[in-house]
Amino acid sequence: MEEFKTVRELFETFNYGDRINLDSITEIELEGWVKTNRNNGSIGFIELNDGTYFKNIQLVYDKNILGDEEFDKVSHYLTGSALDVKGKFILTPESKQPFEVQVTSIELEGDVDESYPLQKKRHSFEYLREIQHLRPRTNTFNAVFRLRSVLSMAIHEFFQNQGFVYVHTPVLTGITCEGDDMFHVTTKDKDDAYFGRKTLLSGSGQIHVESFCLAFRDVYTFGPTFRSEKSNTRTHASEFWMIEPEIAFADLDDDMSLIEDCVTYCIKYVLENCEEEMKFFNNFVDKTLLDRLNHVLNTPFKKMEYTEAIEILKKAVANGHHFDVNKIEWGMDLQSEHERYLTEEVVKGPLFLINYPKEIKSFYMRENDDGKTVAACDLLVPAVGELVGGSQREERYDVLKAKMEKANMDMDAYGWYLDLRRYGGCKHAGFGIGFDRLVMYLSGITNIRDVQPYTRTYKNMLY
Amino acid sequence: MEEFKTVRELFETFNYGDRINLDSITEIELEGWVKTNRNNGSIGFIELNDGTYFKNIQLVYDKNILGDEEFDKVSHYLTGSALDVKGKFILTPESKQPFEVQVTSIELEGDVDESYPLQKKRHSFEYLREIQHLRPRTNTFNAVFRLRSVLSMAIHEFFQNQGFVYVHTPVLTGITCEGDDMFHVTTKDKDDAYFGRKTLLSGSGQIHVESFCLAFRDVYTFGPTFRSEKSNTRTHASEFWMIEPEIAFADLDDDMSLIEDCVTYCIKYVLENCEEEMKFFNNFVDKTLLDRLNHVLNTPFKKMEYTEAIEILKKAVANGHHFDVNKIEWGMDLQSEHERYLTEEVVKGPLFLINYPKEIKSFYMRENDDGKTVAACDLLVPAVGELVGGSQREERYDVLKAKMEKANMDMDAYGWYLDLRRYGGCKHAGFGIGFDRLVMYLSGITNIRDVQPYTRTYKNMLY
Repeated sequence: MEEFKTVRELFETFNYGDRINLDSITEIELEGWVKTNRNNGSIGFIELNDGTYFKNIQLVYDKNILGDEEFDKVSHYLTGSALDVKGKFILTPESKQPFEVQVTSIELEGDVDESYPLQKKRHSFEYLREIQHLRPRTNTFNAVFRLRSVLSMAIHEFFQNQGFVYVHTPVLTGITCEGDDMFHVTTKDKDDAYFGRKTLLSGSGQIHVESFCLAFRDVYTFGPTFRSEKSNTRTHASEFWMIEPEIAFADLDDDMSLIEDCVTYCIKYVLENCEEEMKFFNNFVDKTLLDRLNHVLNTPFKKMEYTEAIEILKKAVANGHHFDVNKIEWGMDLQSEHERYLTEEVVKGPLFLINYPKEIKSFYMRENDDGKTVAACDLLVPAVGELVGGSQREERYDVLKAKMEKANMDMDAYGWYLDLRRYGGCKHAGFGIGFDRLVMYLSGITNIRDVQPYTRTYKNMLY
Repeated sequence: MEEFKTVRELFETFNYGDRINLDSITEIELEGWVKTNRNNGSIGFIELNDGTYFKNIQLVYDKNILGDEEFDKVSHYLTGSALDVKGKFILTPESKQPFEVQVTSIELEGDVDESYPLQKKRHSFEYLREIQHLRPRTNTFNAVFRLRSVLSMAIHEFFQNQGFVYVHTPVLTGITCEGDDMFHVTTKDKDDAYFGRKTLLSGSGQIHVESFCLAFRDVYTFGPTFRSEKSNTRTHASEFWMIEPEIAFADLDDDMSLIEDCVTYCIKYVLENCEEEMKFFNNFVDKTLLDRLNHVLNTPFKKMEYTEAIEILKKAVANGHHFDVNKIEWGMDLQSEHERYLTEEVVKGPLFLINYPKEIKSFYMRENDDGKTVAACDLLVPAVGELVGGSQREERYDVLKAKMEKANMDMDAYGWYLDLRRYGGCKHAGFGIGFDRLVMYLSGITNIRDVQPYTRTYKNMLY
């Protein structure tokens, strides 16, 4: 059975139909880790997980086959032990599991002692954050981090299949378009002289990727970004991954089409490629998850002007609805409670809110003809609120320059960014998705600390 | 001709066979940038590039169709201008280009002035490094950055097709396994207190990804890494991307098989998916490129012990060969000149050098039974030298702990790393590929500054 090396391959081959002739494949070798081990004195059962698949494979070991001494040894292998196993592969169509392995030999490759923290019981997410180097071995985090990996591939396939060029925008940067909460970088003696200028960790790749957009038309970034906000919330981390596509010869409507395509592609992709994991999330993390995601797939994305949203929220308050921020007025920055009301109560589905007041949005967003709003959109979805933020970019040299000067930006540092408007500029647009937030949305996990391999937040960097 | 929006789609459809009925598709709309514009007084030709494809499409504009005034206007559009074009799509099997567009209308979407730096002439790489925001518009850098994008996809496909889990190891870290040349991170007031401990930019994801390897079996990282070396060479940058796979239940031989598969997969992938770009590199950057890469595809990768390599180099010196570092002795760190001699002159093909002296390799590499060497491998290839470095990891708790203590490492910070050897540890191995160096290898470009979107090196961060 040379060709079957992993539990994933076994499940994918023998779980559903296509059961090939077993004569030639009954001998099998596997490696993996013990999840549980129990016995009745003459027959024992080990649930083995080899990391390649969400489900375990059942090993059956028999005193009559192994002998007394070996049986006794195997029966003492603890949860977490690493094993090399040989045995006979047996289909068991009458049992709960589709197949099992009748052990002929087991070698202990790596043992554990009684201090192993992952004994068979449920651990709280909080406790597991204290052992981030071990938590990927639990069911929940195994599912989370496989989802994270599969979703990364979904992103790359979505964009590359359409000819987008992936750009590694720099992490080290001298400029920022995302405010003051930026980390600073020095050499170990805290010397700024390495690069000869102030050096920050990038909070967004957008500014840099725009130059590639104006060469390649359709481009995207996908990499780590950083904020040094001194806040502890469920949705903020100091290091997180962002996806930032940018498209040339495109306006806000083109942008929203791309966002809708991207989000629905990701949902379909993980439903197809993480089937077991998504079932697990739905059973153990958020029982509304699959309904919620399928609802998004089957609901056209709606669009609503910010100005209309304000009217609706005002009416809601007048009719007795209470928000924590209950004073609704045009020009305000909407809170999550307002966004969720609009997407959950008003349109009951995904909603693009568009054309926000220019004062509450970034300098690079294109000013609309009304002189008051910019061509920006936020995608709001039920249960989460804002999932994606995008905009058409200001492509008019004079308008952009005036806005930047008014904002007291360093015009020397941004000269090259303005060049993009002088040298064959064109209308273009883009958006940003917080990748970690997308993993949360697709898994039902509600704390960003539980979807990142090693999470970094204010006052917290254990590993 | 609604369905054809990009020049890439046109070339992929009409360049080779499969010429569909043109009756329904003769009207076309395109957007793009002027590469050249010339006319003979009554007929003009614009080479338009829309960013989606390496080749340009030819626009033909005719005074009899556009009228005198419009013809005059169009004839003054400069290189770099952004255009919206409508016209008739015409197959031209008798011409050099397979098709052209007979213009019916052109709108100028974004103009340029005479200061536009990319006029039609060849620019030096050095000059283009001064205008990194514009160089993707040149043929060479268009090819480089598309190769970079396609090669990223090759990496993800190679690993994901085999079930590897992609792990976003952290950039911010409290530990490092890559020496002293690390950047430090603070808040803007140079305060270390944000995380409550010394914070570095990671030089490698390996240490962190090992914990995922021991949960998922086969994993990989692909992300930015950092070094603050104060050196200016053609191959070192302060920020670069690394690929670091890690495989469980695997030894050095398994590791080398994976490296060989990965490198040949990448070569085949870019030859198939960047055909025009690879031809361009072969014609204009390195005329030996395609021969060199095809040679690697057709040559089995050889293996040689470090100890044997030292003997061969000693003999070469004895026979009159001169190296800059000409004193060859066991225990030395091989220089690029030695590595290239071995791969180019001795085996004339890809070569794994294995089992290096433990003193010149990292603490985490597995000590061999001879007590003198470690199970490490470097892949050497002609024209470049070292392309990949890998090793089997020390999985024996006591051996690793003793080595770390001897090296005066911070045992508190690394406690969790040692845990991986206490809790179901197993033999495992991994390797690292510098992604930027791989782009150089596959393009023939010889300076790392010319394969990175925005390069960061000592004393140099322009954008």
